[in-house]
Amino acid sequence: MEQLDVQERKRIWDNIESALVDEQIDQFRTEFLELHPYDQAKIFEEQQDSIRVLIYSYLSPEEFADVLEHVDSDRAEEFVTEMNPMFASQVLAEMSADDAVDILNDLDKNKVASYLTIMDEDAADEIKQLLHYEEKTAGSIMTTEFVVIHTNQTVKEAMRHLRKEAPEAETIYYIYVVDVQKRLVGVISLRDLIIAEGDFLVADVMSERVVSVPVGEGQEEVAQKMRDYDFLALPVVDFQNHLLGIITVDDIIDVMDEEASEDYSKLAGISDFEGSNMSPVTAAKKRLPWLVILLFLGLFTASIIGRFEATLDQVAVLAIFIPLIAGMAGNTGTQALAVAVRAIATGELDKVGKSSIILREAMTGLIIGVSCGILITMVVYLWKGNFYLGILVGISVTATLIVATVAGALVPLIMHRLKIDPAVASGPFITTINDIISILIYFGMATAFMNLLIQ
Amino acid sequence: MEQLDVQERKRIWDNIESALVDEQIDQFRTEFLELHPYDQAKIFEEQQDSIRVLIYSYLSPEEFADVLEHVDSDRAEEFVTEMNPMFASQVLAEMSADDAVDILNDLDKNKVASYLTIMDEDAADEIKQLLHYEEKTAGSIMTTEFVVIHTNQTVKEAMRHLRKEAPEAETIYYIYVVDVQKRLVGVISLRDLIIAEGDFLVADVMSERVVSVPVGEGQEEVAQKMRDYDFLALPVVDFQNHLLGIITVDDIIDVMDEEASEDYSKLAGISDFEGSNMSPVTAAKKRLPWLVILLFLGLFTASIIGRFEATLDQVAVLAIFIPLIAGMAGNTGTQALAVAVRAIATGELDKVGKSSIILREAMTGLIIGVSCGILITMVVYLWKGNFYLGILVGISVTATLIVATVAGALVPLIMHRLKIDPAVASGPFITTINDIISILIYFGMATAFMNLLIQ
Repeated sequence: MEQLDVQERKRIWDNIESALVDEQIDQFRTEFLELHPYDQAKIFEEQQDSIRVLIYSYLSPEEFADVLEHVDSDRAEEFVTEMNPMFASQVLAEMSADDAVDILNDLDKNKVASYLTIMDEDAADEIKQLLHYEEKTAGSIMTTEFVVIHTNQTVKEAMRHLRKEAPEAETIYYIYVVDVQKRLVGVISLRDLIIAEGDFLVADVMSERVVSVPVGEGQEEVAQKMRDYDFLALPVVDFQNHLLGIITVDDIIDVMDEEASEDYSKLAGISDFEGSNMSPVTAAKKRLPWLVILLFLGLFTASIIGRFEATLDQVAVLAIFIPLIAGMAGNTGTQALAVAVRAIATGELDKVGKSSIILREAMTGLIIGVSCGILITMVVYLWKGNFYLGILVGISVTATLIVATVAGALVPLIMHRLKIDPAVASGPFITTINDIISILIYFGMATAFMNLLIQ
Repeated sequence: MEQLDVQERKRIWDNIESALVDEQIDQFRTEFLELHPYDQAKIFEEQQDSIRVLIYSYLSPEEFADVLEHVDSDRAEEFVTEMNPMFASQVLAEMSADDAVDILNDLDKNKVASYLTIMDEDAADEIKQLLHYEEKTAGSIMTTEFVVIHTNQTVKEAMRHLRKEAPEAETIYYIYVVDVQKRLVGVISLRDLIIAEGDFLVADVMSERVVSVPVGEGQEEVAQKMRDYDFLALPVVDFQNHLLGIITVDDIIDVMDEEASEDYSKLAGISDFEGSNMSPVTAAKKRLPWLVILLFLGLFTASIIGRFEATLDQVAVLAIFIPLIAGMAGNTGTQALAVAVRAIATGELDKVGKSSIILREAMTGLIIGVSCGILITMVVYLWKGNFYLGILVGISVTATLIVATVAGALVPLIMHRLKIDPAVASGPFITTINDIISILIYFGMATAFMNLLIQ
């Protein structure tokens, strides 16, 4: 089966819908359940509520749990709240605990409480456990549906246990080994287990080199670790090395997506990622804070130019090059910023060190500055026929590019040092800072060499 | 074992190094091979070449292949070229074919040819196959070390086959089922296989709903599919549905990292992602092209202002607000750009459609523009005491923000339509475009209402 695009889903749906509205439950179920849960979810999302309500009534909680695990996470909350509470709580109970928790985190406390009270007890307990952990930590993305075996079991016994647990467990491809105090002591991949001799002890075939993450670890660090070691799952432990849960690679992929969108949006000066289905008002609310801050920074820039009004009155032509110089400063600053933020995110910073990055940027800025400076000097001279103006603009560009490049790298590094997420040092922010720097350099020099400019 | 940080690796290494330089091969091997390949790789990377050469001579090609699979991909080429060719070709043969190909793609044709000629034939053939595929396609990231079973095998036979193949295969957690013409007809997870009754036929227990990707598919689309369906591996097929290879989730995670860095760097106007270990000259080379283009766009902006020199001579104060207006235009444009690019990348565009995104941005721009416009009008009036100047700046800001926001969304959408990667429409680019737009609006209006401004 190929992945279905929007048209294909539309076509398939048209077949299914008739069955649905004619209340031909069997036909609907056979055709709908034929599909991969992801496609079921996409089709489900495209329906209006009247149809959705029908679907709830035609699927079992277990069947709909699969669908809900694949719907757009921004909308899952909306769907849960429109189901009748009993069905909703059953569906949540059937979902893997970590996905259920993601949804419950978006619901208001009372609703959550009511769901948990009518929910099957074991499921409720599992969910309550996970609800305790802070968002974006290992604890909040881990699942508690995992298989453990014991050092003193034989491989044959372990396999038998595994077959029993397989249908429930989130993954059975890494099996974690615990001692009598439930402390994590080893791991064995299913690959090694099926190769191993049946009567060997788990202790003899397991690997004691098990990489784990503390329950409080940030999800970005967990993702990094999973990536570095090419694992399919990571065990989560408390400070006494008790096994609390596991994080599977599919959860990590979602984390990576989320973090990437976040960094990207922040570089562009958007507080957090916007879905395209968001209303203009909400979008404006998200963007305005940044723009207003930048507006006042811009006013500050204006007031600086204001200081040089005398200079401007004498040599109005100076104004012509303001956007060019400010723009270049912003551009090179954004480039340096992006490099520095990536270096921090990918951990390269620890390898090469702050000072070497700053030095590198300074050198880069020098090269860029001198090349652009010479270029612009010639162009301005040829264009305006005023040699000193050319020199002034050229030297300003050179000086600006050097300072702006260093500033672009310095700001995120300082933020990182101050434990602020460097990604919030967005392009627009650094651009505006560099506007100010460039204006000061440009007009400062212009005022100093005024007598040369007036011929 | 916890993941090792730089200090820990340093400490461990100090123990190992003495053994190495004293030529105590056994001691070195036991301590070094104790570590996870990722940590081996990190330690290896931190050595200078004299030490690296020793390591090559103390490890078997098979052992070093594990190390090389985990080193920083930017440096793998450097390491391979410093080994003696025989060892290098053996190491490449021992690596999983797709990783070997990644490295060979960075080497010059002659070197590759010479490695392949001295390489074990089977390995060489596998690699030659993969080398044919275009970079960044499914073919280039797939591996050919996978397990296939046949519809007419029993579960017991399949398991036996699996145990035999397990050590070699890249993954055994999804087993793909082919017919006599080697066409992909089904898939079964190891999970389901170990639960199934031993004497059932594979045909009865396999799933025929197998999602596959065409060999020419772009790696970004493959990653999207793997993510949507939460797979651990995806089969790669030709146009006749013959199974050519598989792509495993760990390769996809690297792809996602790569794509995220790329989009991020492009938004900042860097041609492609720079490692922090890159020299200033190389870094400057990568950034200058953009900056020079932007420099000339800036000159164009300057020439536009030049057209308004008369206006400027009369009302020099106008210059004060150039950076503010141009800056705001750039900022809102970058925000809209980022949202549009993400909408394209995440496929949301297909869901909501171009027009609705543009309309959304227009509305957002209107709200942002009016709010900022009113704000700035008041501030300027209070500051300069010139009501008309306040109105002029305010209206310019409003008009600019609306146009700039729409432009920010429009540019990437047009590029997408023209099959150009929208991510190259970087922040700096859109910023400079919007500089021009804003200047035209600002000075155009100033000139029109000149008589009001001069009091």
